[in-house]
Amino acid sequence: MATKVTPISGFPELLPRERIAEQHVLDVVRRTFELHGYAGIETRAVEPVERLLGKGGDADKEIYAVSRLAGAVADGRGGGAGSGGEAALGLHFDLTVPFARYVLENAGKLTFPFRRYQIQKSWRGERPQEGRFREFTQADIDVVDVGSLAPHFEAEMPLVIAEVFEQLPVGDFRVRVNNRKIPQGFYLGIGLTDVVTTLRIVDKLDKVGADAVRTMLVDAGASGEQAEQCLALARICTPDGTFAERVRALGVSHPHLEEGLQILTDVMAAAAAATAPGRVVADLSVARGLDYYTGTVYETQVAGFESWGSVAGGGRYDSLAADDRTTYPGVGISIGVTRLVQLLIAKRGLTASRSTPAAVLVAVSAEEERPASLAVATALRARGIPCEVAPAADRFGKQIRYADRRGIPYVWFPGAAEDGGDQVKDIRSGAQSDARAEAWECPPEDLRPALVTA
Amino acid sequence: MATKVTPISGFPELLPRERIAEQHVLDVVRRTFELHGYAGIETRAVEPVERLLGKGGDADKEIYAVSRLAGAVADGRGGGAGSGGEAALGLHFDLTVPFARYVLENAGKLTFPFRRYQIQKSWRGERPQEGRFREFTQADIDVVDVGSLAPHFEAEMPLVIAEVFEQLPVGDFRVRVNNRKIPQGFYLGIGLTDVVTTLRIVDKLDKVGADAVRTMLVDAGASGEQAEQCLALARICTPDGTFAERVRALGVSHPHLEEGLQILTDVMAAAAAATAPGRVVADLSVARGLDYYTGTVYETQVAGFESWGSVAGGGRYDSLAADDRTTYPGVGISIGVTRLVQLLIAKRGLTASRSTPAAVLVAVSAEEERPASLAVATALRARGIPCEVAPAADRFGKQIRYADRRGIPYVWFPGAAEDGGDQVKDIRSGAQSDARAEAWECPPEDLRPALVTA
Repeated sequence: MATKVTPISGFPELLPRERIAEQHVLDVVRRTFELHGYAGIETRAVEPVERLLGKGGDADKEIYAVSRLAGAVADGRGGGAGSGGEAALGLHFDLTVPFARYVLENAGKLTFPFRRYQIQKSWRGERPQEGRFREFTQADIDVVDVGSLAPHFEAEMPLVIAEVFEQLPVGDFRVRVNNRKIPQGFYLGIGLTDVVTTLRIVDKLDKVGADAVRTMLVDAGASGEQAEQCLALARICTPDGTFAERVRALGVSHPHLEEGLQILTDVMAAAAAATAPGRVVADLSVARGLDYYTGTVYETQVAGFESWGSVAGGGRYDSLAADDRTTYPGVGISIGVTRLVQLLIAKRGLTASRSTPAAVLVAVSAEEERPASLAVATALRARGIPCEVAPAADRFGKQIRYADRRGIPYVWFPGAAEDGGDQVKDIRSGAQSDARAEAWECPPEDLRPALVTA
Repeated sequence: MATKVTPISGFPELLPRERIAEQHVLDVVRRTFELHGYAGIETRAVEPVERLLGKGGDADKEIYAVSRLAGAVADGRGGGAGSGGEAALGLHFDLTVPFARYVLENAGKLTFPFRRYQIQKSWRGERPQEGRFREFTQADIDVVDVGSLAPHFEAEMPLVIAEVFEQLPVGDFRVRVNNRKIPQGFYLGIGLTDVVTTLRIVDKLDKVGADAVRTMLVDAGASGEQAEQCLALARICTPDGTFAERVRALGVSHPHLEEGLQILTDVMAAAAAATAPGRVVADLSVARGLDYYTGTVYETQVAGFESWGSVAGGGRYDSLAADDRTTYPGVGISIGVTRLVQLLIAKRGLTASRSTPAAVLVAVSAEEERPASLAVATALRARGIPCEVAPAADRFGKQIRYADRRGIPYVWFPGAAEDGGDQVKDIRSGAQSDARAEAWECPPEDLRPALVTA
């Protein structure tokens, strides 16, 4: 049993205090999603490899295959593919592809537009590095409809995300929004018909800089003037609706461009009405990969930690979920919970005020008096106060130290009062007073562990 | 994109109403665990295959191996083993083996006795059947200490489980408790020294009956009288502490037997003080497999659905977590959440009162009036009332039907009152009255979806 135990790179685990902090973050996320009427679902961890391949850009390089160990041994072969004639299975690498499959599979039983949230692990076999993990929790919201999807849902996504982030010790953050139709129409309007290649090159702007992008565009067939126009578009970034006049000032016109400008204008107007200034910005350099997005796209950075990558991204997709007869266009955004929490732990010292949910430790004066302490605990729990009973009838100093090491704020002493009643001690202040388990009010700020930052 | 979508056997997924019901169950589980001072942790989904093999009986037949698909292709081999020289990984098949590893890995950073809960998926590649799944959620509590573990923790486990189940529409259930030391001491006391074989045979009692067990025991070397004694012990099942005198009446004595009887007597005394009569029973036939348990063992059946198997089981283990210098004995119990929820869905018609968290649908009278409806929604949410805004400015009859199909109880009409204020309609009763978003009280029973059974 004494096998060596070691962490596995890219599969982070948290100590209890950090996990309590992560759970707090997840509770904020869930409560906010539910306040906005998103219904929670879960999908299985595995999908047929065939379904995973070819979705989400180069995701095929990152898929974890799953196979029965016994099956693989019995077959005398490994199990990248499934065993026993079953379809080859892989762990999902995001929650969008499984959700699209879920919608197709259950379309007849769902009501549309369908608003759902989903908080689950995903797995990618890529090289672990700052902000990138092989196992990570994502928290997604999506709205899908049948046939067509109203554009106001595209305006809703960044508002929900901003509402979540405002409740967390994130500090300054920025939801950057663009609409794919804008560069698409713009490129067509200036005569660049290979939209995909142009987008792909401009997407590198942050990494390689303007000079390299200009060179690559020219290498791909653009004129110098066209390349300058592409760069001018990508440089537009405004905290309000003024991006549209700046785009129009570039003198390009195309129906796609106009459509994209209108939708993005509406998104920014909705943001102005519901979020603090500067939280949501129109940033025409956002491309959000090249996979299934067709309209509005989102990315979110924490100011000062842009190198960690986007902590909430997504966009509109029109053909991800489709069967022979029907398409289910949707829009969604996904919070990278693991990335966000790891960032907050590493850079903001995020932790919890205690390592246990217990607000009270009920002391035990002698082992034969344990039932009296259990009765106190039962009475406190019945009133919603988390507590535990001391593990041993040690001297009280040791029992208080037990509470202190865990950050439990109160120790309860059954029978300690002069009249034979109980007493409770706030071990932070040392204040001790008579109390009855049926009536004592735990201060609300002590009832649950609080988030703490450095 | 029109790939066929089909369920995967053994990987159940729930529709939104059922998932809301499952989430309610999980919330009850978590709240109860936290009231008892268990700290939540999560462990990664994968462990080295080497660590999984040989723990938990014949679990090796059931392990899902995980490997990078790209790595497997590049290697020209399948991936039962890991790729690129990394250790071979498998998905965990329970939460106890990963927890034991977590304790060893973090022993220096934890405070003992360590009370933890863990609610996560596990995976087993076994054949799916009634009550058995390949992917399933478990909810575990364990207490682990250093060197030795006080027996009162063995009494605590069934009380927490009973408290959870009493809050759910489970109906009649029974936590059956035994102590491994009792049959162990008893068998030694009557001269049967091959305890493991005897336990293994008697464990089949439920399945094959007394005659077959008697024959197998005799085949294994027991005398007819010894076999009868084993059966007599296994038949003892009492709802209180009277099992001990019935065991002693069999006239066998051994130190292990006495020790086991004392601990089980304490467990039953604690149960009598804290649970309804008959919820926790001493059942000396409970063996709970043959893996790592060394003391008290638990199983839980829902009355009438014993064929679904145990919905909460566990026990005490003394050497599961151990390194070269230290052992960390523990006791734990695990709720089979997926099995329980699937049973409740199939046999009790478990579902939720609505398919969305939204208690209110805010109607939209015209698309240009959407901002007014959004403002109402924002005001309701600020007061903790989940709501959504109608997706389209359809005629009100259609918007009410939208709410009705989802089970949303209230529809809000901005500006519908005679004085230009708002109105809210309870679409179940048809009652409509003036209301202000800043003041309207949502009846508490309507604030969240309720559990519904047939």
